Amino acid sequence: MAIRELEESDYGKGFLGILSQLTTLGEVPEDVFVERFRELRGSPDYRVLVAEEPERGRVVGAATLFVERKFIHACGKVGHVEDVVVDVGCRGHGVGQRLVAALLEAAREAGCYKAILDCAEQNQGFYEKCGMVRKEVQMVKYFDR
Amino acid sequence: MAIRELEESDYGKGFLGILSQLTTLGEVPEDVFVERFRELRGSPDYRVLVAEEPERGRVVGAATLFVERKFIHACGKVGHVEDVVVDVGCRGHGVGQRLVAALLEAAREAGCYKAILDCAEQNQGFYEKCGMVRKEVQMVKYFDR
Repeated sequence: MAIRELEESDYGKGFLGILSQLTTLGEVPEDVFVERFRELRGSPDYRVLVAEEPERGRVVGAATLFVERKFIHACGKVGHVEDVVVDVGCRGHGVGQRLVAALLEAAREAGCYKAILDCAEQNQGFYEKCGMVRKEVQMVKYFDR
Repeated sequence: MAIRELEESDYGKGFLGILSQLTTLGEVPEDVFVERFRELRGSPDYRVLVAEEPERGRVVGAATLFVERKFIHACGKVGHVEDVVVDVGCRGHGVGQRLVAALLEAAREAGCYKAILDCAEQNQGFYEKCGMVRKEVQMVKYFDR
């Protein structure tokens, strides 16, 4: 399994199908994907990683880091890990842990003083295996569109 | 009490002192503050609001929004509310609620499908008064520097 940066051609390798296993994907035509891809690729604050099964040339996992710039902690940075997902047929083989480990390392290299993520309570154990500890609670407000 | 965008001159109006009531501030000389201020002001994805007591010309509260760009939810956006703090001498008068309400509205206007934040369990009630509900758990990894 190869862990690498998201590429524009991953639109045709099942990247969005993997994300749809995480939550609502909605309509993402290729031009909309490409526009967002280039926004994120052009920012120093986003890293999108995928796991690719080289034999099949298919994306089987994904995870995103973005780096928030703060005033606190001496104008420090915090890494936010987002949208971690592994194909249901590939779980239990450490792919998710490798993705998270790669993003935590990327956050450390970016100079973040910490990395955080929000997850369902049932996934706490997985993130503990990734070396993280539970701290706060997440509050949410959904907007009607 | 006026709720407004952070300005460069707020360095001299107690902005950092307010943040130091939230967590570790560390050393933030004026040139470092100005550099970070201009980074955030130049980004369409950050909004830093302050509450100012006009009579004294002092910052007595602050809160930050940044907007994360995603692939999920039709390449949607999520608003992250960060670093909400009100001066200990000014609490209980709705300043925090006004700051949070302004940022939630900014997130909605930016096209976010939701806004989220992480808080200590003891602050859950405050954010419920702001119209938010508890959802997930936060996991954290601190880095040695």
